Amino acid sequence: MRIPYDELKAEFRRVLLSRGFDEGDAEAAASIFADNSLDGVYSHGTNRFPRVVEYLDSGLMDPHRKAGCVSSFMAFERWDGHRGFGPLNARIAMDRACALADRFGIGIVALGNNNHWMRGGTYGWQAADKGYIAICWSNTMPNMPAWGAMDSRIGNNPFVIAVPRSDGHHIVVDCALSQFSYGKLEEARLAGRMLPVDGGYDSEGRLTRDPAEIEKTGRVLPMGYWKGSGLSIALDAVAAVLADGNPVERIGTFDKEEGLSQVMIAVAPGKMDDAALTDSIVSSIADYVNGSVPAAEGGKVYYPGQRSWETRRDNLEHGIPVVEEIWERIKAL
Amino acid sequence: MRIPYDELKAEFRRVLLSRGFDEGDAEAAASIFADNSLDGVYSHGTNRFPRVVEYLDSGLMDPHRKAGCVSSFMAFERWDGHRGFGPLNARIAMDRACALADRFGIGIVALGNNNHWMRGGTYGWQAADKGYIAICWSNTMPNMPAWGAMDSRIGNNPFVIAVPRSDGHHIVVDCALSQFSYGKLEEARLAGRMLPVDGGYDSEGRLTRDPAEIEKTGRVLPMGYWKGSGLSIALDAVAAVLADGNPVERIGTFDKEEGLSQVMIAVAPGKMDDAALTDSIVSSIADYVNGSVPAAEGGKVYYPGQRSWETRRDNLEHGIPVVEEIWERIKAL
Repeated sequence: MRIPYDELKAEFRRVLLSRGFDEGDAEAAASIFADNSLDGVYSHGTNRFPRVVEYLDSGLMDPHRKAGCVSSFMAFERWDGHRGFGPLNARIAMDRACALADRFGIGIVALGNNNHWMRGGTYGWQAADKGYIAICWSNTMPNMPAWGAMDSRIGNNPFVIAVPRSDGHHIVVDCALSQFSYGKLEEARLAGRMLPVDGGYDSEGRLTRDPAEIEKTGRVLPMGYWKGSGLSIALDAVAAVLADGNPVERIGTFDKEEGLSQVMIAVAPGKMDDAALTDSIVSSIADYVNGSVPAAEGGKVYYPGQRSWETRRDNLEHGIPVVEEIWERIKAL
Repeated sequence: MRIPYDELKAEFRRVLLSRGFDEGDAEAAASIFADNSLDGVYSHGTNRFPRVVEYLDSGLMDPHRKAGCVSSFMAFERWDGHRGFGPLNARIAMDRACALADRFGIGIVALGNNNHWMRGGTYGWQAADKGYIAICWSNTMPNMPAWGAMDSRIGNNPFVIAVPRSDGHHIVVDCALSQFSYGKLEEARLAGRMLPVDGGYDSEGRLTRDPAEIEKTGRVLPMGYWKGSGLSIALDAVAAVLADGNPVERIGTFDKEEGLSQVMIAVAPGKMDDAALTDSIVSSIADYVNGSVPAAEGGKVYYPGQRSWETRRDNLEHGIPVVEEIWERIKAL
């Protein structure tokens, strides 16, 4: 079934208000979850919402605990998320990084002790919508073996880069550092599909496309094998150092994935050039990529972020696809 | 054959002095090439040196054209490399980013119109040696197809993250965004070896580990398939916008790989914490990764940068491995 965007967002808003969110927070948080579904990231929109409300109901997440600055030096600030509502704290931190970029050309906010930010792309789009370049990432619990390892000691730390165009058609790459998320493995297994490329190891230690085998061993592949493994370790170190926050290892000792370390970097190209110049550079790159000769007949070559717009248009026109059972659960919350 | 580090560096220095480098530049540039070989990155050390001298001799590269700042806003500066000596310009730009981080906590220098910086890791180690966290990258000529494309319209843009420890055992990841460089493909083909994992497509459009097939089609794989493709496009856009420099597309219209756009970001954790705290966080992450259960019997799981130290120690003790023919060529320059 497909639900109009406004109806979905109003429902999220209603539930959040009933859980003690104030008007502004309920509006902002409902937008984040509704926009994630609007862009086709259902795993961090509609499908995740009931679990988030469970956390709120059980007191594991307190929406009144807001991120605050604990120390600062000019364009570099360290914030503490106090394990409040992850996406709102991350949004505040990215807004602050943009404000710092306004003042200094570039700004960085290291946000420690925050809860899960849901979809990393949210904060890239947020900054790009206001004309900033953004680089941001979060660490996670240990959910991936380092290259050459059996046991999971690194995170699939989602990494985001956003470059703005004033018409909103930003270049936004948002990728976890595992080749496939656990959600994608489950989805493929349930659909009886093999993965399009190797996603991990089977119990014989061979690379495989079989999602069920990978779920059994837990040996998911870092993207680019040794490369994603190295990037994951380095991003965890930067985040933990700058936030004086929890590294992946320590997050693994908590009951759930909480107390994460996140980094938001914003740069203001507007301090050097007018938006028209930035637009023309970004457009020339996007157009050049789009002009590639497709490998498959009738195929299309995309720049990152482009498909979000296609999904967004379709979902605005026809409503957002939701699993009926989940929608009923949300309405009953 | 193996040549002592000091002898190698002295030889580089002699050649550069004979090509009009002043004392300071010859010393700095000789160090960069010698250190790349010392760390085992021979492709951007000894093996590359004769070609660089060719460029100097033919006037394609002028060591007297130094990078300079063209515009600035607080912690964000735009520099022009004037197509001078790439590695020295990149080094100056990273030094400047560190100086900005001293003043603002974070600093960014976008360096346009520079020549090839050789090994990206050089600038990560440089910043980390002085206690800074560094993130830097360069774009390249179009040398890789975007995901889903036949023709090469994106770059394998090397990307570097460095996190310091005061004993020099930094975490440094330095990876091109292709799964394998063209150098590695050639090396495997000459040795009659298959690649350890898929590296590109054969002429039937199938993924393959056969380096000769990939060289034939030119269809190298981005690391992580669609993920590396997206990252490459985004990093090109950030670099071209911030430097107002050449994007990958335009570099493809030049005679050789020149006029590149590079970004150097430095953050100063020392503005928040003393080095002992940073050291302890980085060490706990490195030790945790090292403590992984290896997949292969007797195997070892590394953090990025760790193997450079092992190679460095071995090469300092036993001399740097050089191809005799190349060494003879360098001595005759």
